[in-house]
Amino acid sequence: MSDEAEIRMMLDRWAAAVRAHDLETILEQRSPDIVMFDVPEPLQAKGLEAYRDGWKLYFGDEGSRLFELRETHIVAGDGVAWVRAILRCTTSPDPAGRLTMGLRKVGGRWVVEHEHHSFPVGLGEGE
Amino acid sequence: MSDEAEIRMMLDRWAAAVRAHDLETILEQRSPDIVMFDVPEPLQAKGLEAYRDGWKLYFGDEGSRLFELRETHIVAGDGVAWVRAILRCTTSPDPAGRLTMGLRKVGGRWVVEHEHHSFPVGLGEGE
Repeated sequence: MSDEAEIRMMLDRWAAAVRAHDLETILEQRSPDIVMFDVPEPLQAKGLEAYRDGWKLYFGDEGSRLFELRETHIVAGDGVAWVRAILRCTTSPDPAGRLTMGLRKVGGRWVVEHEHHSFPVGLGEGE
Repeated sequence: MSDEAEIRMMLDRWAAAVRAHDLETILEQRSPDIVMFDVPEPLQAKGLEAYRDGWKLYFGDEGSRLFELRETHIVAGDGVAWVRAILRCTTSPDPAGRLTMGLRKVGGRWVVEHEHHSFPVGLGEGE
């Protein structure tokens, strides 16, 4: 299987686990030292425990049952890869979120070392 | 020079160009097909022209004169790399932004194909 196909399979499995609120599967192929830039505060969540806590919080959002990646773009080299995708996780047509991941191949397996999730701010908001 | 050192030099030059509102230098080492997930809408800006328009808009923000990367973390493999960093771009101690980049080496030169900029949402905000 190509690196890209392996990463795509991991992403599919991970998104399905989010929809199922299956925390154990969500944590698979995540680095113990993962750094998460999540939609809500804190600024950054460091380590697997903080990453897990973010998901627990997110399960309170009904959009988590719809969590789906679109326009997934995977760039994989020899041992390092990154991913960008659009995130559908709401019943309203708008807004959608954005996802970026940084990965490294460790012991022959792709591991996510970084995730960045966000929603764009409406122009004129946040002033 | 190592790949990591090359990328770090590019980042320093780029951040200085943002502070100087030097659009030409900001656009260096950016792919014509760059995809930008910026702080404000749109959801994604595709291509160099849309990327440039986002910076023009951002120059109206006084924080752009302070634009500085902290805790820069670079993971570079053979031809593919990604970067995460904390962004200081405001006079207030809080909040700070987050930056993730996806890069590829093209013709011996590191090129940014993707950027994701965001601020975390305060818990209780946006409801």
